[in-house]
Amino acid sequence: GFAKLDHHRSLRSGFGEVVFCQGKAIEHLIHIYQRFYEHDTNVLGTRATKEQYEEVKKALPVVEYDALSHILSIQKKEINKTGCIAVCTGGTADIPVAEEAAQTAEFFGSKVLRIYDVGVAGIHRLLSKLDEIHSANCVIAVAGMEGALGSVLAGLVDKPVIAVPTSVGYGASFGGVSALLTMLNSCAEGLAVVNIDNGFGAGYMATQINRLAVRAE
Amino acid sequence: GFAKLDHHRSLRSGFGEVVFCQGKAIEHLIHIYQRFYEHDTNVLGTRATKEQYEEVKKALPVVEYDALSHILSIQKKEINKTGCIAVCTGGTADIPVAEEAAQTAEFFGSKVLRIYDVGVAGIHRLLSKLDEIHSANCVIAVAGMEGALGSVLAGLVDKPVIAVPTSVGYGASFGGVSALLTMLNSCAEGLAVVNIDNGFGAGYMATQINRLAVRAE
Amino acid sequence: GFAKLDHHRSLRSGFGEVVFCQGKAIEHLIHIYQRFYEHDTNVLGTRATKEQYEEVKKALPVVEYDALSHILSIQKKEINKTGCIAVCTGGTADIPVAEEAAQTAEFFGSKVLRIYDVGVAGIHRLLSKLDEIHSANCVIAVAGMEGALGSVLAGLVDKPVIAVPTSVGYGASFGGVSALLTMLNSCAEGLAVVNIDNGFGAGYMATQINRLAVRAE
Amino acid sequence: GFAKLDHHRSLRSGFGEVVFCQGKAIEHLIHIYQRFYEHDTNVLGTRATKEQYEEVKKALPVVEYDALSHILSIQKKEINKTGCIAVCTGGTADIPVAEEAAQTAEFFGSKVLRIYDVGVAGIHRLLSKLDEIHSANCVIAVAGMEGALGSVLAGLVDKPVIAVPTSVGYGASFGGVSALLTMLNSCAEGLAVVNIDNGFGAGYMATQINRLAVRAE
Amino acid sequence: GFAKLDHHRSLRSGFGEVVFCQGKAIEHLIHIYQRFYEHDTNVLGTRATKEQYEEVKKALPVVEYDALSHILSIQKKEINKTGCIAVCTGGTADIPVAEEAAQTAEFFGSKVLRIYDVGVAGIHRLLSKLDEIHSANCVIAVAGMEGALGSVLAGLVDKPVIAVPTSVGYGASFGGVSALLTMLNSCAEGLAVVNIDNGFGAGYMATQINRLAVRAE
Amino acid sequence: GFAKLDHHRSLRSGFGEVVFCQGKAIEHLIHIYQRFYEHDTNVLGTRATKEQYEEVKKALPVVEYDALSHILSIQKKEINKTGCIAVCTGGTADIPVAEEAAQTAEFFGSKVLRIYDVGVAGIHRLLSKLDEIHSANCVIAVAGMEGALGSVLAGLVDKPVIAVPTSVGYGASFGGVSALLTMLNSCAEGLAVVNIDNGFGAGYMATQINRLAVRAE
Amino acid sequence: GFAKLDHHRSLRSGFGEVVFCQGKAIEHLIHIYQRFYEHDTNVLGTRATKEQYEEVKKALPVVEYDALSHILSIQKKEINKTGCIAVCTGGTADIPVAEEAAQTAEFFGSKVLRIYDVGVAGIHRLLSKLDEIHSANCVIAVAGMEGALGSVLAGLVDKPVIAVPTSVGYGASFGGVSALLTMLNSCAEGLAVVNIDNGFGAGYMATQINRLAVRAE
Amino acid sequence: GFAKLDHHRSLRSGFGEVVFCQGKAIEHLIHIYQRFYEHDTNVLGTRATKEQYEEVKKALPVVEYDALSHILSIQKKEINKTGCIAVCTGGTADIPVAEEAAQTAEFFGSKVLRIYDVGVAGIHRLLSKLDEIHSANCVIAVAGMEGALGSVLAGLVDKPVIAVPTSVGYGASFGGVSALLTMLNSCAEGLAVVNIDNGFGAGYMATQINRLAVRAE
Ligand SMILES: Nc1ncnc2c1ncn2[C@@H]1O[C@H](COP(=O)(O)O)[C@@H](O)[C@H]1O
Ligand SMILES: Nc1ncnc2c1ncn2[C@@H]1O[C@H](COP(=O)(O)O)[C@@H](O)[C@H]1O
Ligand SMILES: Nc1ncnc2c1ncn2[C@@H]1O[C@H](COP(=O)(O)O)[C@@H](O)[C@H]1O
Ligand SMILES: Nc1ncnc2c1ncn2[C@@H]1O[C@H](COP(=O)(O)O)[C@@H](O)[C@H]1O
Ligand SMILES: [Mg+2]
Ligand SMILES: [Mg+2]
Ligand SMILES: [Mg+2]
Ligand SMILES: [Mg+2]
Ligand SMILES: [Mg+2]
Ligand SMILES: [Mg+2]
Ligand SMILES: [Mg+2]
Ligand SMILES: [Mg+2]
Repeated sequence: GFAKLDHHRSLRSGFGEVVFCQGKAIEHLIHIYQRFYEHDTNVLGTRATKEQYEEVKKALPVVEYDALSHILSIQKKEINKTGCIAVCTGGTADIPVAEEAAQTAEFFGSKVLRIYDVGVAGIHRLLSKLDEIHSANCVIAVAGMEGALGSVLAGLVDKPVIAVPTSVGYGASFGGVSALLTMLNSCAEGLAVVNIDNGFGAGYMATQINRLAVRAE
Repeated sequence: GFAKLDHHRSLRSGFGEVVFCQGKAIEHLIHIYQRFYEHDTNVLGTRATKEQYEEVKKALPVVEYDALSHILSIQKKEINKTGCIAVCTGGTADIPVAEEAAQTAEFFGSKVLRIYDVGVAGIHRLLSKLDEIHSANCVIAVAGMEGALGSVLAGLVDKPVIAVPTSVGYGASFGGVSALLTMLNSCAEGLAVVNIDNGFGAGYMATQINRLAVRAE
Repeated sequence: GFAKLDHHRSLRSGFGEVVFCQGKAIEHLIHIYQRFYEHDTNVLGTRATKEQYEEVKKALPVVEYDALSHILSIQKKEINKTGCIAVCTGGTADIPVAEEAAQTAEFFGSKVLRIYDVGVAGIHRLLSKLDEIHSANCVIAVAGMEGALGSVLAGLVDKPVIAVPTSVGYGASFGGVSALLTMLNSCAEGLAVVNIDNGFGAGYMATQINRLAVRAE
Repeated sequence: GFAKLDHHRSLRSGFGEVVFCQGKAIEHLIHIYQRFYEHDTNVLGTRATKEQYEEVKKALPVVEYDALSHILSIQKKEINKTGCIAVCTGGTADIPVAEEAAQTAEFFGSKVLRIYDVGVAGIHRLLSKLDEIHSANCVIAVAGMEGALGSVLAGLVDKPVIAVPTSVGYGASFGGVSALLTMLNSCAEGLAVVNIDNGFGAGYMATQINRLAVRAE
Repeated sequence: GFAKLDHHRSLRSGFGEVVFCQGKAIEHLIHIYQRFYEHDTNVLGTRATKEQYEEVKKALPVVEYDALSHILSIQKKEINKTGCIAVCTGGTADIPVAEEAAQTAEFFGSKVLRIYDVGVAGIHRLLSKLDEIHSANCVIAVAGMEGALGSVLAGLVDKPVIAVPTSVGYGASFGGVSALLTMLNSCAEGLAVVNIDNGFGAGYMATQINRLAVRAE
Repeated sequence: GFAKLDHHRSLRSGFGEVVFCQGKAIEHLIHIYQRFYEHDTNVLGTRATKEQYEEVKKALPVVEYDALSHILSIQKKEINKTGCIAVCTGGTADIPVAEEAAQTAEFFGSKVLRIYDVGVAGIHRLLSKLDEIHSANCVIAVAGMEGALGSVLAGLVDKPVIAVPTSVGYGASFGGVSALLTMLNSCAEGLAVVNIDNGFGAGYMATQINRLAVRAE
Repeated sequence: GFAKLDHHRSLRSGFGEVVFCQGKAIEHLIHIYQRFYEHDTNVLGTRATKEQYEEVKKALPVVEYDALSHILSIQKKEINKTGCIAVCTGGTADIPVAEEAAQTAEFFGSKVLRIYDVGVAGIHRLLSKLDEIHSANCVIAVAGMEGALGSVLAGLVDKPVIAVPTSVGYGASFGGVSALLTMLNSCAEGLAVVNIDNGFGAGYMATQINRLAVRAE
Repeated sequence: GFAKLDHHRSLRSGFGEVVFCQGKAIEHLIHIYQRFYEHDTNVLGTRATKEQYEEVKKALPVVEYDALSHILSIQKKEINKTGCIAVCTGGTADIPVAEEAAQTAEFFGSKVLRIYDVGVAGIHRLLSKLDEIHSANCVIAVAGMEGALGSVLAGLVDKPVIAVPTSVGYGASFGGVSALLTMLNSCAEGLAVVNIDNGFGAGYMATQINRLAVRAE
């Protein structure tokens, strides 16, 4: 195998391994999944295509694919979930990225609260959900186009907000750049940003924060 | 005089003339102001520097300068103001641009309601002002950095919103580009955008809209 | 249904609802259209693909699709049209975006005057149409490539001009950025801009303005 | 006073208030500082110029200025510091931004570990400090030019890393854009990014995380 | 002297030499001007600062400086002018660049027709000058901000149009990029573009074209 | 027919009409070609796809398609060619754009000299062709990637050079932007630039220049 | 044949010829390969598609295609390999570009050491390979996304490092721009950069360096 | 001292240390220079301002400053120079960057051949110097604006060429981006690029190459 697999990073310990599927050759993917399967670890593969899924499934029928989040996973061991992370989206088109974040957080043992389609163009939708959101240790704000959800959330809650710009939009959204810039320039306190469409990165960091908080409960 | 002066555009009729002072040579500016002064018209000069003001004043002591909005004006005739335009800002640093918009609207005969420092990072500030804003025929939203004020306003009111991105910010605000993109990508209905820091353009178009509405009252 | 539908925004009252079809899953779209259909409201869906149309039609044969504007609509109630909005284009390739604008305006009860292929490279074409354009309460200027139509129009008429840059062009048109910048930098007064290819946004705001004017007649 | 002051955001409770000094007029600044001073709250003002400091000091001799971090503060009440945040920089030129982060974290009650000039061009410098860094609940990585420090740190520690790109560099560093992109594209897990030179934002969010962790100790 | 001087390029033959003054050290400039002076050639230096002029004048009192065009010249021999080049500008702020173009063309023996402040926001100003413009062999269109003058001119005349974008503007004019893109994307035939503010390049190429035409008369 | 056809522009007089085929609907194209065919004019259609050709051919078998230049033409009348334009390319991949230029020039009555694959990475190839190139009245330089051909040619010949950047390349060629910038920044005199891949624009303007020169022969 | 083939560049002497296959027509490619085949030279064709391979193979069955590196080659003569070049990648997705570099270096007679998947997010992987890397005369660092591998390598070894940014990534990787900027801004000494995905360029220059070193052994 | 000084990097061994002066505080600089001075090492400080020089000189009169290259150095030990590096520039304005490269190479023991002002707009100037350039082991090509010198050189010589884009230019040169892109997209073989204005980086890497070659002589 020419890819060097890491078996020792700490957050993953006892939870499982992560694979970045995008652009990986089928044989390569099968090789990686089989090796993890033999080690009895759970696997979370992100950005997998339906075609990759179908080919890997032939060799390893145990893999599961979520067409919404594009996650290709093996779940061998039960996952015990604790704490709370709120995952919010501006529109329905942002849900695939939000699911990547939510399922990543769940894979690593966090409870997730999903609050979708509460964008700032109709602010009452978000305001009516605030009580629920306050119960989370960390908030993930997923939004494309104008991307203002992160700012408004960070202004309303006092927990860390991780903002995920999405490539949803057209014209001057420039594949997510508009939302990215909005989030980086937020005037609200307590907001940091990950790459465009990087639900995985947000879910992972939210889990790190959630665990720090859970130790305290 | 080598600049061709227009005396016939319709919105201006009976109100006065506009001068874009930025980059104009002192002698040239004095020449223009003097000619208008002799025609007994009001003059609204935008983007004037303090130095331009001081030089023009020597030749024409009647000119007035507003250091906040950088407007250099001659007001010979009373202006009768009608209707209503709401001018809102995200922060206090956006006030100079907002004043350019507000004073332009007033110059052309609109009443102006100023609602400053109501940015989305503390959404309650804006919500408490909504009743007032609803009384306007047109809303101008002035904001830098993340620039989300326009979207939130357009989602809350059913009058046309003209959004003005400002160059306020640092880092990835890129001199106003971040706010500009946010505004162009707004998911809310009833929003259009002018150039970065272009308070004049917003004030002018808002006046066109206000007049259309006022004819009805 | 996981998308929160708004039934109360004011311009829409008595006219119908809007759906942003781009990127929505078929089942999701059918669900939305059916719910609106049951509420007896007209529906205007923008940026729908032919494939979305064909699938929705199977479930709801009453939907209609305009292949030019990519609008997927249900028209249950007659629409009474008033006032006047002029929709102009630079070339014939801009017509799809112009139709999105025009049909949006008509959906919300505005009369529309279509003046297509009058770009500034042959200025006589535009000049010969000026009398007609002057009769409108608001002008929409749709143009790609150099995008100068908005400026020239705003210089010629004294009503608000909403400029829509289009992604028509190649090379350094950068998918509409060239036209967008031209429009934002217009030296003419009374011009504001919406996102690249956003005919809907222009049609909606023009309707807001048209209504303000119509109240007066 | 035309700026609306918030006295109720939760992280700040019992710690003090924050002022964004950049671009604020002197009189305006004095007004704000005086009002907070009278309320007996600590104040942390960021991005203050030396000139602003000198003018405010005249009116309010109690203010202190840190020329490195550009922080203009009033410290009336003792701050009790808990937990641990590691603040690392790539080079010595990044220290001003790092100090803004560190002093913000301290202002809100976090202990700070400063580890400066450990950029990846001489990786041994960083490796020799790893044990210390592991003791922190959250790591702040401050770097300009190539900005790779965040990635390397996130790969080495299992706590959340907040990366701050700086505008240090020349040529194709584009005022911090190069470092920003590096950080957004990190292949390492557990990294999120704030605006270029935004030490304050990083210090604030790190404090939110540190507090969640401290509750557990 | 460490700069290699060319004495043989053909357009220049019998007319004189060109110097790009920007960024050249004073001693270096004096050396170059003196050498040309001794060879009895005319010299056209572009983008010279006032400070450069004053220093060179001390050594070589014969040099002349035009503060508008920033041209630093020595004119030893009479220039015989033929043909015709029309130089047009959108606004008065574009005149410095237009003068660089016009004086370059004159230096190399072309007659120049100056038509300034005829931008497209008031199209009647341009239309009233068309007869004059038609008499030229080549047209230079100088404009900043929206930069639409080139397109409109190329649509109206059947001679080659050389468009010069200027850095005049603010906000999204991006130092001339907006005008540059407008010009590159022109839908009109017979237009080519030079660098932002490059009046010299336009004047030179227009002269090449004018000479080809003059041979025919 | 909803496109307004121009029959009177002067360069075209007696030569034929131009159609910009990109993005035009098939029925629309057929309509245009048929109308010109009935008026007995030659037609030059640029940027036509093979599919457009096949559909138009069904209705109008007289049309001809050049798969290299993507030109879809009708040639009813003989074209008499005069003067000389040199069309040079950097590589073989630039030939399609060069052919668009060359065939446009021929369509409007210019003789064309084709000199392909003489890029600056092997400068001897270009130097060996200089004598031929000197015979032309105007030179077109077509190049992608680094795009330096225009500069080198303009330095070697004393006729106007029209540079056409092409989208040939990968990575940081950014679809032709690299070549475009190189050409705009040329240090050589007598060079102007058209849009990326705009062979038509270069061929047209070169013909305007060639005609001015030919009148003299 | 309309492409001018060079048979005399020095590095190639005795090794073979290079063809840039991207965008070349099939007939054209066959023509070139056949001509070289008849001259008994080895051929290295880069950026060939599978389809090009299949068509060329029909005419010239001796060609070989490496689907990973997209190299289409003819190897007629044995290649004697000397010296050493280390080719390192950040991830497995960078291997295609690395193979283009490695096979280019081998084609021109260099020994190559392949060290793949040693990105900086897990720095121990790279550190464990340092001894091997030190044996090379030149190092090629191939990495996408954050692209920090080049900097870390240049900091660790004292031989020239040629960095190749790859287009691997998504979102704000902007097709390789992020990695390109990281590499250009490296704080480490002894690093230069080639175009995004330009494995060939890196392999070629590394060979030039390797040869200079080998002469010494 | 809070900056960690490296005394062990290999190229430097026996030659001296490097300091990046830009943005360093005076006290900090003095501290560094004094420490190196006490260790008897030569020091090469780049990007130093005249003001930094004057202040450091007060504390350490032995420092020398080259106003052209902005190098602030201490030379305690004789440097023995071997091999050969050719440093070429396009224009005279590129000389400061070229001198940074040349003096860096000399500092580390390379002989340097300076060939300035041989840009491609007058290609004969470069061709007449080719024999000299062929004698070098490595070539540095320094150019701004169109930046084509690197390509032409790499096409003419068979030694590695290191290209340095400079920020010389105006308008669409975008502070060196135009030259940078030209160089990255070079069609010639054997060229790699460093950051804009990074003469130091080019001089350092050229020295690494020169040393590898010298071992052979
Ligand atoms: N969607 C994603 N975006 C960014 N990084 C990811 C993503 N998914 C996985 N990763 C990272 O990629 C690593 C696995 O890469 P690989 O070994 O190439 O499969 C994981 O350890 C994560 O750090
Ligand atoms: N073409 C369009 N461009 C931008 N926004 C649109 C467009 N069409 C509809 N919208 C907005 O999208 C909203 C509906 O979004 P959704 O609920 O996701 O269907 C409408 O209320 C409009 O504000
Ligand atoms: N390849 C091209 N690039 C730019 N403009 C073109 C091109 N081909 C034709 N044109 C212009 O497009 C006009 C015809 O446009 P249309 O009436 O839409 O067919 C012609 O008169 C030309 O000015
Ligand atoms: N002009 C320059 N551009 C880029 N890097 C430089 C430059 N001058 C010096 N350096 C690097 O900066 C390091 C010294 O940085 P410092 O320790 O901050 O003085 C040197 O070892 C070089 O790697
Ligand atoms: Mg908050
Ligand atoms: Mg609204
Ligand atoms: Mg108007
Ligand atoms: Mg980590
Ligand atoms: Mg014309
Ligand atoms: Mg020339
Ligand atoms: Mg090194
Ligand atoms: Mg070479």
